[in-house]
Amino acid sequence: MSGSDSPRVVLVAGTTRTAEIDGISAAGASREALLHTPGADAELLTHGDVVRAPAVPVSPTGCPTPALVTRAVRELLGFDAAVVDGGLARPTGAPTVSVGARPGRDIREADPVQTAPGAFTAGREFGRALPDDRIVVGETVPGGTTTAMAVLRALGEDEIRTSSSLPENPLDLKREVVSEAFATSEIEPGQAAHTPELAVRFVGDPVLAVASGLVAGALESGTDVVLGGGTQMLAVAALVRHAGVPRPATLATTSYLASDVPNLDSAAASFDLDLTVSDPGFEAPEVGPLSAFADGVGKEGAGMGGALALAGEAGRLDEVTPATLDVLDRVTDREQGPERSD
Amino acid sequence: MSGSDSPRVVLVAGTTRTAEIDGISAAGASREALLHTPGADAELLTHGDVVRAPAVPVSPTGCPTPALVTRAVRELLGFDAAVVDGGLARPTGAPTVSVGARPGRDIREADPVQTAPGAFTAGREFGRALPDDRIVVGETVPGGTTTAMAVLRALGEDEIRTSSSLPENPLDLKREVVSEAFATSEIEPGQAAHTPELAVRFVGDPVLAVASGLVAGALESGTDVVLGGGTQMLAVAALVRHAGVPRPATLATTSYLASDVPNLDSAAASFDLDLTVSDPGFEAPEVGPLSAFADGVGKEGAGMGGALALAGEAGRLDEVTPATLDVLDRVTDREQGPERSD
Repeated sequence: MSGSDSPRVVLVAGTTRTAEIDGISAAGASREALLHTPGADAELLTHGDVVRAPAVPVSPTGCPTPALVTRAVRELLGFDAAVVDGGLARPTGAPTVSVGARPGRDIREADPVQTAPGAFTAGREFGRALPDDRIVVGETVPGGTTTAMAVLRALGEDEIRTSSSLPENPLDLKREVVSEAFATSEIEPGQAAHTPELAVRFVGDPVLAVASGLVAGALESGTDVVLGGGTQMLAVAALVRHAGVPRPATLATTSYLASDVPNLDSAAASFDLDLTVSDPGFEAPEVGPLSAFADGVGKEGAGMGGALALAGEAGRLDEVTPATLDVLDRVTDREQGPERSD
Repeated sequence: MSGSDSPRVVLVAGTTRTAEIDGISAAGASREALLHTPGADAELLTHGDVVRAPAVPVSPTGCPTPALVTRAVRELLGFDAAVVDGGLARPTGAPTVSVGARPGRDIREADPVQTAPGAFTAGREFGRALPDDRIVVGETVPGGTTTAMAVLRALGEDEIRTSSSLPENPLDLKREVVSEAFATSEIEPGQAAHTPELAVRFVGDPVLAVASGLVAGALESGTDVVLGGGTQMLAVAALVRHAGVPRPATLATTSYLASDVPNLDSAAASFDLDLTVSDPGFEAPEVGPLSAFADGVGKEGAGMGGALALAGEAGRLDEVTPATLDVLDRVTDREQGPERSD
């Protein structure tokens, strides 16, 4: 669309109350901020600013949301974007496609994602029907790396280390949460092999259900798929393979995420994913607040790795830093209100 | 967005069962087709093809939906599009913003649009929050010219003749339906002056509620608004003025619509609307199936007039015919399936 040959970027946005466990997510400073984060990311992608969400998401240490990077690349390349509701908990001003997903409960509860099988099926039908030749799929769900870890374990694919939106990955806490999830669940680790919708229903989140259904359907109908993200998109790939869809795809992620996951290459290969790693160069001296990405906060998310791969394909990766700073300035000015003149 | 300076096109898509009255609408050949038409139009605008809708809408006489024209202009100019759910009755593959509208009932029932006041308010908040400098607002709602006539009458603005999607405007039938609507309603003609949300609730449709709220909010927050459409968008303007929002706007429509509404100029002026009339040239010999527009079927709708105005601003109005034929060919081939080789 829009004169460019860039594929459509599809962002699956939703929530799991797993994110509210202390220390799990960097996606928002308070419970309310966490609940608004996916909708805010969706608004940034589609409108270039927050609309109904109260603020641009920042981590507790001040790292802005990776959605700003995805938006900046969108402003450079002009790709189409679509948001699919993967269980949003607050109204969003971003247009969303509904496939019946509802907000996910804490995975330490017995049946946290009852809408998962239906959303997986409806997402798959939607993916099959998309007319696009190629799509990039991303996710935004605070707490999603923990649910991804649990889902990989439910599928029997738990040798993969999941990443984190925090500089020090709280792996021990995540493992404890995942263990508690299985303790209350109807399924054992490995028992959901070949039944991806049950893995997601009992220990996952609604974004994984929707994204894996969408990707499965798109691949089945001949659409090329780029998974833009990190370990959550790896979990999506695992779910797709366990749904019996063999067609290869691509995992496009950031250098920051790749540094955090030592066995990413082999994990991607095991799910028939080509791996594309992009370095946006946020460690350069002029990047200002974007250095938080290079410091290991917000390594990936909201399709950032996929957008960077598109920028790389277009030979415009070096324009991403100034474009992201422009978006950041614009949304920050707006938040401070029109009366601020300095 | 996307490198172009075109404003965002916002399509409000929804339903009223008023459309099911025999002879009222050309938007679909059967009840089920009517219910799918707004979602199909939204999918054509955002995806370039139908996705979840079963078919590209055509009138009983074979005129394709004006959404194809809006999409064609989008492919030329690369403008951003957003769809707002104005009471869709079937799931759509187009991403939509929800402001709480539900499908409208037949206006001959006593209280056909109970969600109107809430949707008007939520639409107004959404319109206020939009970061855009300028937006184009369009509608797709089969049966909408009849509900627009009733709403104008409820506001005491009923000197305006409303248009039709049929070559012979069934004015007598519409007047009869409108009379029956007032007979069962709590309000009399003129009684809803200054209470637009009640006009829409008692004799309107949910698209009018959402579109007028959205336009009122956008104008209040300093966004320039182009109403892309015909008499339904005039009714939106009337509702906005009756909501106490005085800021001028533009009505951008087609030459086919303008020919059908003799007092359009004065009506637009009475609501502080600049009038832009665009002629896409669909009476030329090479237009094939598009000649149905020039014959008076599907004169306007799905933001067609607004899109044509944008094409005119860009000096590319003469490219609209081939671009629309391209879109029509593409979506027709797809409907006939990949196995068709001739």
